[in-house]
Amino acid sequence: MATNGKDIARLIAVCRDRHGIIAALAGGLADAGANIVSSNQHSTKAEDGRFFLRMELHLQDLAAHRTELERSLTQVAQRFDIDWQLLDATRPKRVALFVSRYEHCLLDLLWRWRRDQLAMDLTAVVSNHENLRGAVESYGVPFHHVPVDNHNKAKAEAAQLELLQGQVDLVVLARYMQILSPEFLTRVGAPVINIHHSFLPAFAGAQPYQRAFDRGVKLIGATAHYATAELDDGPIIEQDVMRVTHAHDPHKLEAIGADVERMVLARAVEWHLADRVLIDGNRTVIL
Amino acid sequence: MATNGKDIARLIAVCRDRHGIIAALAGGLADAGANIVSSNQHSTKAEDGRFFLRMELHLQDLAAHRTELERSLTQVAQRFDIDWQLLDATRPKRVALFVSRYEHCLLDLLWRWRRDQLAMDLTAVVSNHENLRGAVESYGVPFHHVPVDNHNKAKAEAAQLELLQGQVDLVVLARYMQILSPEFLTRVGAPVINIHHSFLPAFAGAQPYQRAFDRGVKLIGATAHYATAELDDGPIIEQDVMRVTHAHDPHKLEAIGADVERMVLARAVEWHLADRVLIDGNRTVIL
Amino acid sequence: MATNGKDIARLIAVCRDRHGIIAALAGGLADAGANIVSSNQHSTKAEDGRFFLRMELHLQDLAAHRTELERSLTQVAQRFDIDWQLLDATRPKRVALFVSRYEHCLLDLLWRWRRDQLAMDLTAVVSNHENLRGAVESYGVPFHHVPVDNHNKAKAEAAQLELLQGQVDLVVLARYMQILSPEFLTRVGAPVINIHHSFLPAFAGAQPYQRAFDRGVKLIGATAHYATAELDDGPIIEQDVMRVTHAHDPHKLEAIGADVERMVLARAVEWHLADRVLIDGNRTVIL
Amino acid sequence: MATNGKDIARLIAVCRDRHGIIAALAGGLADAGANIVSSNQHSTKAEDGRFFLRMELHLQDLAAHRTELERSLTQVAQRFDIDWQLLDATRPKRVALFVSRYEHCLLDLLWRWRRDQLAMDLTAVVSNHENLRGAVESYGVPFHHVPVDNHNKAKAEAAQLELLQGQVDLVVLARYMQILSPEFLTRVGAPVINIHHSFLPAFAGAQPYQRAFDRGVKLIGATAHYATAELDDGPIIEQDVMRVTHAHDPHKLEAIGADVERMVLARAVEWHLADRVLIDGNRTVIL
Repeated sequence: MATNGKDIARLIAVCRDRHGIIAALAGGLADAGANIVSSNQHSTKAEDGRFFLRMELHLQDLAAHRTELERSLTQVAQRFDIDWQLLDATRPKRVALFVSRYEHCLLDLLWRWRRDQLAMDLTAVVSNHENLRGAVESYGVPFHHVPVDNHNKAKAEAAQLELLQGQVDLVVLARYMQILSPEFLTRVGAPVINIHHSFLPAFAGAQPYQRAFDRGVKLIGATAHYATAELDDGPIIEQDVMRVTHAHDPHKLEAIGADVERMVLARAVEWHLADRVLIDGNRTVIL
Repeated sequence: MATNGKDIARLIAVCRDRHGIIAALAGGLADAGANIVSSNQHSTKAEDGRFFLRMELHLQDLAAHRTELERSLTQVAQRFDIDWQLLDATRPKRVALFVSRYEHCLLDLLWRWRRDQLAMDLTAVVSNHENLRGAVESYGVPFHHVPVDNHNKAKAEAAQLELLQGQVDLVVLARYMQILSPEFLTRVGAPVINIHHSFLPAFAGAQPYQRAFDRGVKLIGATAHYATAELDDGPIIEQDVMRVTHAHDPHKLEAIGADVERMVLARAVEWHLADRVLIDGNRTVIL
Repeated sequence: MATNGKDIARLIAVCRDRHGIIAALAGGLADAGANIVSSNQHSTKAEDGRFFLRMELHLQDLAAHRTELERSLTQVAQRFDIDWQLLDATRPKRVALFVSRYEHCLLDLLWRWRRDQLAMDLTAVVSNHENLRGAVESYGVPFHHVPVDNHNKAKAEAAQLELLQGQVDLVVLARYMQILSPEFLTRVGAPVINIHHSFLPAFAGAQPYQRAFDRGVKLIGATAHYATAELDDGPIIEQDVMRVTHAHDPHKLEAIGADVERMVLARAVEWHLADRVLIDGNRTVIL
Repeated sequence: MATNGKDIARLIAVCRDRHGIIAALAGGLADAGANIVSSNQHSTKAEDGRFFLRMELHLQDLAAHRTELERSLTQVAQRFDIDWQLLDATRPKRVALFVSRYEHCLLDLLWRWRRDQLAMDLTAVVSNHENLRGAVESYGVPFHHVPVDNHNKAKAEAAQLELLQGQVDLVVLARYMQILSPEFLTRVGAPVINIHHSFLPAFAGAQPYQRAFDRGVKLIGATAHYATAELDDGPIIEQDVMRVTHAHDPHKLEAIGADVERMVLARAVEWHLADRVLIDGNRTVIL
């Protein structure tokens, strides 16, 4: 059972799979006085695969004993060449939301956040339009209007980076309709989650609902993925679909799709915030 | 409620949408003494769209009065330039199944047919392998082995056409792994339904499960569509998906996918046999 | 394709199934100059069943010709003993929403209404709590606080009836946690749609999420139904479910369920507003 | 990734949750030379809950070192009062299938077994009817006809027990329409999985499809659960649903439901055979 309580830390470990990793890590944790509250693991193959682990730990007075715990983990990690992170479950990630004109994903995230369903600090909403300022500010979240057109894209991204750099642990593109440059993705220094309004890899790119209608598909979908330099091609975190019929025109597909989009994005963000999404090349492991 | 009973006919009508079509058709049917048991209709737009209609009719002693009924319909059809068909619900369609090595779709159709869930006459199973002969013959269905290799494809298709021409109202490709030529599709003189083991248009072509694994999708699907000259691009009849996780390897995706494939294909075939699938360009209307 | 445009009316017809009903109705409509834009029909049995019909009609200058159209329909209706209604698609229904403390269904309906996805006039929100006044009034909808406790229930219902009587075409209980008396349901003079937070008939009554957890179900659901004198037993309009696991506690079931509830209720209300939901005893026919 | 390979064992551990269990177990396994291939764990609460663990272990020459491994585990288990089992993944469970007249679940399990999707030894099919003998024997599985009527129930159960006792690790009721007595369930000495043709707890007992039709539900479901003395009330392993409409009569609900039943039962049996289903009171934990 997921836990956000006091003195709870999350251990994420990724490495080449070898004998004895869990025993060594569990031993190291026990030496440091930490108790394993939950543990999930995935190996890509029975032998010679890649190893992915997520543990939730309880350690009385975590803050006071953190150095000791990290020392203990460092020793194990060196032995097994483990790439690891120890995250404090009580320290919410700082998140910026990007949005264009469509409000449905943004409002849904704001609403879930206010209900305490998303453990994050909302540091900023950035938009290339003014229309959602009122809605965002009514939640007490700073709204930044950074206009983007074909001529000022580089300048706009520079302005966005100035707002964000060092200030955020995650950027969520909640139907932000501008393509971010590879340079932006590199320089922003935080993972970027995008929601694409189709069941990827079908209908990557523009106008997915119109193209879904033209192709006559019987289900429409949405995909939350990490943004990478290649458009709509990053690791998929979550997808879902809804049934449609011949009676639905592209406008109705868009309305039905809005419901899929906001639920898929919310699940992806929730899992990322809980450090449950591990990257395995262009795939994700959800632990 | 669908009906296969005695004296039941199905009227399929397609035309440019205009005022008064339903009134004229219903009047013509009433004049001929036919009662409308069920009626479903779709127009692609409120004005100037295309009009699709499926009705189930009851007419006492249908066989005796069919000519009269057709005369009445012909008059209405000429006025509105309607493309129409009158089908006898008690005359099952003659169906041939094509299959390669994978048995799951074939066995599922045979099993549903024996349970009286598919109203068809199974005239033949055609395969490029011998391995399913026993299973097919145990159902009392003729099995034809037509080997196919890179050098004899034209000859093999000629042999298949000789088996089928004039003998079938529908061909179902139940995981037949050879690509049929456009000439075959033209000459066979019956619609051809194919099951593709992906959620089209994603992963059209070969190896869809491996490619779905590589892309890291979170749902896998199957698509039943009418085969056309362009591979995996014909009008979609039905699609469905199942959830998968990072823990499923391509072999497991294939096993899970087999269940989706057989259910999607069965639904598509059932709807086609009931004359519920109407073609609208590259889309289908299911009435 | 559904249509809300000018000069569009909806004809709902229910009767004992007999020969010639559609022909007679279509003839009557043609006589009055009305064109059938869409037509869907359901008969409960091939013979001697109940007949349900929904048509969308276009009639130039509907308002001017409505009397003539009604006269024409009345003649047909008398012949076949049809229970019928002719509804103007451009006249939105007047709707009151009832809510207690939980906001998710209410906010979702308000949001869809602002997006023009629900064709209704929102005349009032009635609550037994004050907490949602600000949210409701920000949408420009009147908010009425009618406190309810064990001693004043009859008085509270009288106050609610005074607010509503003659003012509404539909009441939606958007997680209103008080049981309305049979007298209220009779006297309010409009259908009442309730959302129940379980997959009925499972977990009717109180605490469905806790009971779903205790029973260890693997899917949780929600049900939108017409409220009747018997609690949680009225005709079901729509249901849906989501998958849950052993790892979800009752609190998490409630959070997941909130998403199902708001989508199920929104679909039910949308269908009702479009006159697509016909009552067949304790079942519904969605046309 | 699940593994059935050579030298693979599964460790199932259940106990009151306490600090250090995983570390102690992992240490004990490392001492015995076993490597943890996969590990999944669930605690019902962050503190003072119940602890459930499933691990897949690899130990070179497992057979030769099994005693040593068990000794090591026994020591840890005593310290933490752990209820544990060590299961050899290469030793398939012995399974008996019970069936009445309806074939769909039985045939589906036989078919999956032949495809190597169910790792089990099918020792017997027991039926109170003769009609499926041919189908079963064509798979090379012994078929036993044990007639049951109102007067001979005790005798019939005695005959069934004589066939099964000490011979099976699992009994699967694949639409066996007789109620087994609590005495039978106690004496058979193996878990019993039943498939019920409804979404439990809705429509427990007889005639669920007719009752689902009468209630007008919009989804029908199936439930696989462990049989207990109380009818349809044992721990649920898996459930699923499919959408239905007003146009489906009870006969069609039954046909659609057959597909849900066979998939739900197959998943439940597959998970049980892989030792993934742990019992938590009247709930199940799927690891």
